[in-house]
Amino acid sequence: MNAGAQLAWPTVSCDALRRFVAKAFVSAGLSAADAAAGAEVLVTTDAWGIFTHGTKNVRGYLRRLKAGGLRAKGRPRVAAEGPAWAMVDGDSALGMVTSVFAMQTAIAKARACGIAYAGVRNSCHYGAAGYYAWLAAREGLIGLSMSNDIPSVAAPGSRGAVMGSNPIAYAVPAGRHPPLLLDMSTATVAGGKVYAARARGERVPATWLIGADGKPTTDPSGYPDVGALQPAAGHKGYGLALLIETLAGILSGAAFTWRVGTWMWDDGAQPTNHGAAFLALDTNAIMPAAQFARRMEALVDEVHAAPRAEGVERLYVPGEMEWERHECALKEGLRLPPDVVASLREAAQMTGLDLDRELAA
Amino acid sequence: MNAGAQLAWPTVSCDALRRFVAKAFVSAGLSAADAAAGAEVLVTTDAWGIFTHGTKNVRGYLRRLKAGGLRAKGRPRVAAEGPAWAMVDGDSALGMVTSVFAMQTAIAKARACGIAYAGVRNSCHYGAAGYYAWLAAREGLIGLSMSNDIPSVAAPGSRGAVMGSNPIAYAVPAGRHPPLLLDMSTATVAGGKVYAARARGERVPATWLIGADGKPTTDPSGYPDVGALQPAAGHKGYGLALLIETLAGILSGAAFTWRVGTWMWDDGAQPTNHGAAFLALDTNAIMPAAQFARRMEALVDEVHAAPRAEGVERLYVPGEMEWERHECALKEGLRLPPDVVASLREAAQMTGLDLDRELAA
Repeated sequence: MNAGAQLAWPTVSCDALRRFVAKAFVSAGLSAADAAAGAEVLVTTDAWGIFTHGTKNVRGYLRRLKAGGLRAKGRPRVAAEGPAWAMVDGDSALGMVTSVFAMQTAIAKARACGIAYAGVRNSCHYGAAGYYAWLAAREGLIGLSMSNDIPSVAAPGSRGAVMGSNPIAYAVPAGRHPPLLLDMSTATVAGGKVYAARARGERVPATWLIGADGKPTTDPSGYPDVGALQPAAGHKGYGLALLIETLAGILSGAAFTWRVGTWMWDDGAQPTNHGAAFLALDTNAIMPAAQFARRMEALVDEVHAAPRAEGVERLYVPGEMEWERHECALKEGLRLPPDVVASLREAAQMTGLDLDRELAA
Repeated sequence: MNAGAQLAWPTVSCDALRRFVAKAFVSAGLSAADAAAGAEVLVTTDAWGIFTHGTKNVRGYLRRLKAGGLRAKGRPRVAAEGPAWAMVDGDSALGMVTSVFAMQTAIAKARACGIAYAGVRNSCHYGAAGYYAWLAAREGLIGLSMSNDIPSVAAPGSRGAVMGSNPIAYAVPAGRHPPLLLDMSTATVAGGKVYAARARGERVPATWLIGADGKPTTDPSGYPDVGALQPAAGHKGYGLALLIETLAGILSGAAFTWRVGTWMWDDGAQPTNHGAAFLALDTNAIMPAAQFARRMEALVDEVHAAPRAEGVERLYVPGEMEWERHECALKEGLRLPPDVVASLREAAQMTGLDLDRELAA
């Protein structure tokens, strides 16, 4: 709370941050195991440098846990299943807890069958889609992860929002290279970047937003009350968002489009009933592990060796930047942005924890 | 061959065109069943209005069939399999024949397991990705289809091509509505549109191409010898292309990136060894069919009813335009563009068929 205490941790160890988040969740009623799972998701996300989806949101999850829209003692379960699919009912548990459970279910079924789908209903905001894809890659499988959300993105020609920003992520083991890891919204840009531009009084590129009339605008001052984000690559991003809505929202039995609650703004006492979908594909069942690894290495090496435009120092494969930040964070600690620190302070206040003492540990 | 004969078919019946293509394939040595399968793929594609991927390419396939790079008597087979996956060796048969076989294999396994993956190697250009996705939707399943190709698309920061235009398509049954059907390249634009602009001496939008220096250019005159297409939505299209390369090229054991032959330009005597990947998901295993249909209808109805920007008459879901063209083509016949007619004339010459007589039938 005072400047001296803040200076005690210009950077924070991932371990300490993980312990703090887990304690905060336990104080809100989660079991130690669920709290640890949630903390692991959020701190890994911060370590990748995706601070918009990491521990900054603990405050919001705590608020919903206290209000009852998230159930601290909720227990995700397999409500129905077949050889290569499962339908997971999240029981309004923390989205991270349900999503880890669902991807682990998909992984186990993929090991038996080659590939598996797990749909999720009665979930909530699940953070960074990429974490669950990586859960599969960590165990040698290809993972895909997707989620729906309340609409914030236009369809081509619409005047307002029609689809959620519906993220999709994948991860692929790549031999001696870190796993490929792509985590993308189907909107041109994350809403957070529009808020940031609005706060700074800046214009935005004409590809980001439509205004109240449904036409592209560079003025973010009305968002999100009027207008909407533009879909990435127009009809392509819109089309992918509809596939994600189908797999994560329709087939899972979750809420879809406007029926989804807004986890950040709505009455915290009501479940949001987000949907999600997870796919795991066991490459080891299909091709010898060493052969798959060599082929993925050749693919990545080829990209790295390709001729570059002037001024470009490196060509990246998806996830490479995130894994370098992750390695740095584990070695040297996490340098948290001010908005994350401010949010963690509020989370500490809500749970009676001393943030400075926890993070100095 | 003469103007009078051409006037005999300003529009062509889909049945007549299908018969002509099948006869041409039979004359090149294909079995009647394989010829019919190939014709059905290509004429359906024309009926959707995607003339770049339809019967226009029969000429090119015939050339490869005669040269031996495509094997007229090739027999796709399941080379390895598990409960929910199969690896299909295309035996250098016509890409359409192998791809229909592979998707049917995936559908059968998805019916047993809920979801299934079929990888394909030793294939060739497979035409419109969407056809195979629709094969699944026609039988009440969700289908996904993807293919790799020789690089023509830049990675962010590269000076030249790094990835293929790697298409992905999906189809979803939608109750009383026609199936959702999206078929997209992971490049900003199809190479054919660049060729067309070059032929007309026009500039192209700055988002389509990079030039020899790796920077965006509006000058298409050098393509494809220098420069490359830009990926759709930058790192997003590029990242999706890498996933498609992994599922269709790496895991299938097919050629990948520069190892893939160019079906149109290469020595027709060499197999191209394209790879492909097909996914089928049996929604009926997971949710009662009527419930899934009602939910999909609600999703589509919601899009149709959303407020529109000024001057916009309708909001579309993916595939809606293609199905309307398809219905029109079945009723009123297909109005083939001049380049398709010219290509069909050459195909007729190659096979000793009388195009005018065949298409007037």
